[in-house]
Amino acid sequence: MKTKELSYYTNGIEAKNTVILSQSITLVESSKKEHQVLAQQIINHCLPLSGNSIRIGITGVPGVGKSTFIEAFGTFLTGIGKKIAVLAIDPTSQQSRGSILGDKTRMDNLAVNPDAYIRPSASGKTLGGVGQKTHETILLCEAAGYEIILVETVGVGQSETEVFSMTDFFLLLMIAGAGDELQGIKRGIMEMADAILINKAEGDNLIKAKQARREYANALHLFPAKESDWIPHVELCSALQNTGIEEAWNIIESYLVKTKTTGYFEKNRKRQTKDWFYKFLNHQVLTSFYEGNGITEQLKEIEQQVLNGEISPFEASRIVMGN
Amino acid sequence: MKTKELSYYTNGIEAKNTVILSQSITLVESSKKEHQVLAQQIINHCLPLSGNSIRIGITGVPGVGKSTFIEAFGTFLTGIGKKIAVLAIDPTSQQSRGSILGDKTRMDNLAVNPDAYIRPSASGKTLGGVGQKTHETILLCEAAGYEIILVETVGVGQSETEVFSMTDFFLLLMIAGAGDELQGIKRGIMEMADAILINKAEGDNLIKAKQARREYANALHLFPAKESDWIPHVELCSALQNTGIEEAWNIIESYLVKTKTTGYFEKNRKRQTKDWFYKFLNHQVLTSFYEGNGITEQLKEIEQQVLNGEISPFEASRIVMGN
Repeated sequence: MKTKELSYYTNGIEAKNTVILSQSITLVESSKKEHQVLAQQIINHCLPLSGNSIRIGITGVPGVGKSTFIEAFGTFLTGIGKKIAVLAIDPTSQQSRGSILGDKTRMDNLAVNPDAYIRPSASGKTLGGVGQKTHETILLCEAAGYEIILVETVGVGQSETEVFSMTDFFLLLMIAGAGDELQGIKRGIMEMADAILINKAEGDNLIKAKQARREYANALHLFPAKESDWIPHVELCSALQNTGIEEAWNIIESYLVKTKTTGYFEKNRKRQTKDWFYKFLNHQVLTSFYEGNGITEQLKEIEQQVLNGEISPFEASRIVMGN
Repeated sequence: MKTKELSYYTNGIEAKNTVILSQSITLVESSKKEHQVLAQQIINHCLPLSGNSIRIGITGVPGVGKSTFIEAFGTFLTGIGKKIAVLAIDPTSQQSRGSILGDKTRMDNLAVNPDAYIRPSASGKTLGGVGQKTHETILLCEAAGYEIILVETVGVGQSETEVFSMTDFFLLLMIAGAGDELQGIKRGIMEMADAILINKAEGDNLIKAKQARREYANALHLFPAKESDWIPHVELCSALQNTGIEEAWNIIESYLVKTKTTGYFEKNRKRQTKDWFYKFLNHQVLTSFYEGNGITEQLKEIEQQVLNGEISPFEASRIVMGN
């Protein structure tokens, strides 16, 4: 990728040019050193323009209808005058490096909606475990004027925790009748949720969905109180029939009023910024170490000794670290 | 925990004393510095005694019957004269820090079987992202004479990749009729599998299980060839009725014959040792950085500037790194 000068990107983002926004995000996600330098300058410029959005994490196992929900929810939000961005945290297969969430086409209407920006990100694992740059991408979208950022994640585990650590509100989608166990919903994920929406509450499924709502509401009662003092809601919706969508937004608005009043909202944002800082610092510390004088040659030799079983990884580390 | 001298642990492990083995693993998992020093000495001692086991990763979403399978499979293995260890990679809830896999009682027979050692580990996230020390635990179990190590993991995502990166054979348990999507089985997990076992292939479920076997076998055909040249098997089993258990072991034995002949087994082990070395080295590099002179005070100040929005995390990192 041939890069342009800094002002091209910063002016483009401020002018809400989605092509330049996308190019900037690609720079941010690049692992090339010159791209990284430029990307940091772009983010430095955008930082003061960022922060004024609502960041919503959305999760649920495959099959609960996340794309259909985001399509309906996003269309509702743009309908009430909001500009929205949809980002995806993609736990890409390490083996095939294929993208699971890569198809924009799952959100036909949003994809052509001028007030919606969809960014299906490919994940890139780099040294030190820093994955895709979702936090940075959120900031750029905010600087480009997007007021609501939906961060979608698939699966159960690491990626949820990651999304949780960079959003204001965490929404868990479920469906009735599949059984908790098969939905892979672990206690940890339910504990993160600020709202649980039972999707596909329609037709023959409605009775089961109401039953599921009661059960989840009861289950949530047994959880320890949240630091935010917010009591998670459990509601029904049908993304297909477009019911329960406005109600979902109302819940989020109540949450914002409450947490902005108590100060939790700001406190949580600060904690997330702190985590982001240390994640980046760790990455820099490791990069600087591995770029050190003669380290590549030394490691090549010592790695071989470890592989031959001549020394343990612990001794090898001590030698490399010089202590 | 009051520690004893090195020989207490190394003699205990060599004498196959499970109480001392457990104490040693607890030391390995401790984040206390003095425990770490001792733990590394123990592992250094055990390294030459380790490596002579078969390491089997077992995964599948909650509800597929992993515990029942491990109970049946482990009992079969001890029945043919093997000593087995069962370890768990536990993606513990970061919120509640409660353990999901913590209950030994799920494996009633194995828990009292003198040839089986069960270690339900709690996960501990430490600086630099190094989680629980499963690789180290495997080595200690091997030094204590366990010939087959079963490493169990729950959920879909990060923990599977971790287990995959430290085992010789990767076994995926599934059930019929739940639908791929609801089982949360992502392409990436299926690609890692050396065998897929359709569990609960019993009674009324048998026809559906056979159908599922055909479907998964067809699906696997579309995947790229494995580096090991091994063609994954898809078979039926019923952990409850104890069918298909011996057949599962036969598959693993064929795999071992093949991969030891081609040299893939050894190559894979070496790669895993290399990964382990760099994971540890990264951890040491970060620890050494954060323990540096005056760094705590400097970070306290600069962190505040980041939180106040006075400087970006990038500038802050540059200042702390001194460049």
